[in-house]
Amino acid sequence: MVKVGIVGATGAVGKEILSVLHDRKFAVTSVHLFASARSAGKTLDTPFGPLQVQLFTVEAARAMDYVFLAVSGSFALEHAEAIAAPGGAVVIDNSSAFRMQPNVPLVIPEINGAAIGTKKLIANPNCTTAIAVMALWPLHCHYGIEKMIVSTYQASSGAGVEGMEELFNTTREALDNPDKTPSNKVFAHPLAFNVIPHIDVFQPNGFTKEEMKVTWETNKIFDETNMKISCTAVRIPILRAHSEAITIKTKRPITPADARALLSKADGVDVVDDPAANKYPMPLNATAKYNIEVGRIRQSIVFDEYGLDLFVSGDQLLRGAALNAVLIAEYLEKPYPSKFSKQIK
Amino acid sequence: MVKVGIVGATGAVGKEILSVLHDRKFAVTSVHLFASARSAGKTLDTPFGPLQVQLFTVEAARAMDYVFLAVSGSFALEHAEAIAAPGGAVVIDNSSAFRMQPNVPLVIPEINGAAIGTKKLIANPNCTTAIAVMALWPLHCHYGIEKMIVSTYQASSGAGVEGMEELFNTTREALDNPDKTPSNKVFAHPLAFNVIPHIDVFQPNGFTKEEMKVTWETNKIFDETNMKISCTAVRIPILRAHSEAITIKTKRPITPADARALLSKADGVDVVDDPAANKYPMPLNATAKYNIEVGRIRQSIVFDEYGLDLFVSGDQLLRGAALNAVLIAEYLEKPYPSKFSKQIK
Repeated sequence: MVKVGIVGATGAVGKEILSVLHDRKFAVTSVHLFASARSAGKTLDTPFGPLQVQLFTVEAARAMDYVFLAVSGSFALEHAEAIAAPGGAVVIDNSSAFRMQPNVPLVIPEINGAAIGTKKLIANPNCTTAIAVMALWPLHCHYGIEKMIVSTYQASSGAGVEGMEELFNTTREALDNPDKTPSNKVFAHPLAFNVIPHIDVFQPNGFTKEEMKVTWETNKIFDETNMKISCTAVRIPILRAHSEAITIKTKRPITPADARALLSKADGVDVVDDPAANKYPMPLNATAKYNIEVGRIRQSIVFDEYGLDLFVSGDQLLRGAALNAVLIAEYLEKPYPSKFSKQIK
Repeated sequence: MVKVGIVGATGAVGKEILSVLHDRKFAVTSVHLFASARSAGKTLDTPFGPLQVQLFTVEAARAMDYVFLAVSGSFALEHAEAIAAPGGAVVIDNSSAFRMQPNVPLVIPEINGAAIGTKKLIANPNCTTAIAVMALWPLHCHYGIEKMIVSTYQASSGAGVEGMEELFNTTREALDNPDKTPSNKVFAHPLAFNVIPHIDVFQPNGFTKEEMKVTWETNKIFDETNMKISCTAVRIPILRAHSEAITIKTKRPITPADARALLSKADGVDVVDDPAANKYPMPLNATAKYNIEVGRIRQSIVFDEYGLDLFVSGDQLLRGAALNAVLIAEYLEKPYPSKFSKQIK
């Protein structure tokens, strides 16, 4: 008897959670969609058949085994702890509200599932972080990542269904009327045929919160306190897969060939690195795919034998959100150790 | 009496050269368009009025004062030296053919115009390099850039008019038929709503030639031999302005405020760095503009007080090609010293 509840089932992430649960044959006995009074009573077509949206109450949510929160941080802050309180449900929260709270595990199951312990409120990482760490964890375990520079190529889906629709609509505007600047509502500026180096709010140090999330969350997931990470997070006019150009400085010497061999053993990661055949990670192929892609692995010119440059692409809504959330629930049903563990300090 | 010839006037760069020459009131007495027999005799509408295309011959080109080559490297290799031989014209070549030849100056006039000396064959730098060094030169002079990591966001115009048209046409295809993968001819993969981490051919070290150009050409323009630069060059679905996320490691301590103050004195550079007002460099604003934009200047988390992260955008066809070529000719008409010179070794 596994009862699953989803809050935010009409959003981009909520829809994908339903689809992933169904596709992976997660052993649910019933699926419950929760929403505010405004949406309660509506019927939604889902992979589990038509489901009627129920009014969200903490009591109703507590009656579930798992509750996926695919809504805002403020909703999570208000309700997550009450749902997860003793006797309640396991809460897997996709917002950033609890990610950096010391008593809340921030989890990529293949990396640090063991960090969950007996906790019942679990945070799902930021999408950019989640995609990158899939490729970085094996490297960190074997070579010790000391420093890292990340530049992102982030899709419109990071701003939800509204973001994806705005990109489509304004791109058409721009094509039909090239002399007019396209409009914008969801993004700070028009995104069609543009790039915007601004995601989430600016922090006092000049970095955006999105950029600092990569620094903060990677350290927490890897159980480190002092990996130095500088990120530039950039929104670009694509649909739903994020890419990242990453430079790492390692403690032990590393070669591209060794990195490829190691990464080819990792779950959730496809090494796509055959330049001679024009094969490298791209949103075109990473979209709608569970595994992230890593490639363009080369010896860093800046850090020589102690560094690599690489490129990753991953579906923002899957590994970056819904898939990882469902994998957390799967882990709790059947825990497993990480394939990799830290070989060096 | 200044006679100017352009080879490749119907291409994306050639058209911009005509437009920049006219806009900047470069003192031409006549403008000559040269092409192969296939195009000779046609009449082109230009800012200088309708001009008939002449058959290219080395003799006809040698009769000019300046010849702009906006064609392939193989054409340049075949003819550039003959045109520039004693008694001939000054040749400003936009291809990569001669850029790294020790006896050919590679020039950004505001930085190293003095490197031209008495040479008559001058190479115009790679677009990505040209845009970045505008912001990097003042910083290098005052703080000494030792290492650099660059990730690029490059527009379709880097592949000429054909690239821009392919982006437009395939974007419309993708909008009209979202379930079908758009086509591609110019680019190695479909570019609409995709990113392609592959520009120019792959080198034995795993970097592309485009990436190595940033390393090689920056060193040459700055008259350095050992600045370590790792670049990841990525094509994204935008029209004609390149952006770059850049991390620098300096020899002397540097602060964002000092960098902003210094860069605000540079010619050809607009400091656009007011996050609170949502102001930062973007292709949307950098397009069709002579100055490059620099912003998002912040203290690097990786290199602490010896490093900065920054973001630049610049028009690929202007500073990245046509404008810089015309500025080389302007420099030769009236030389001037760089505003900045190296303060530290």
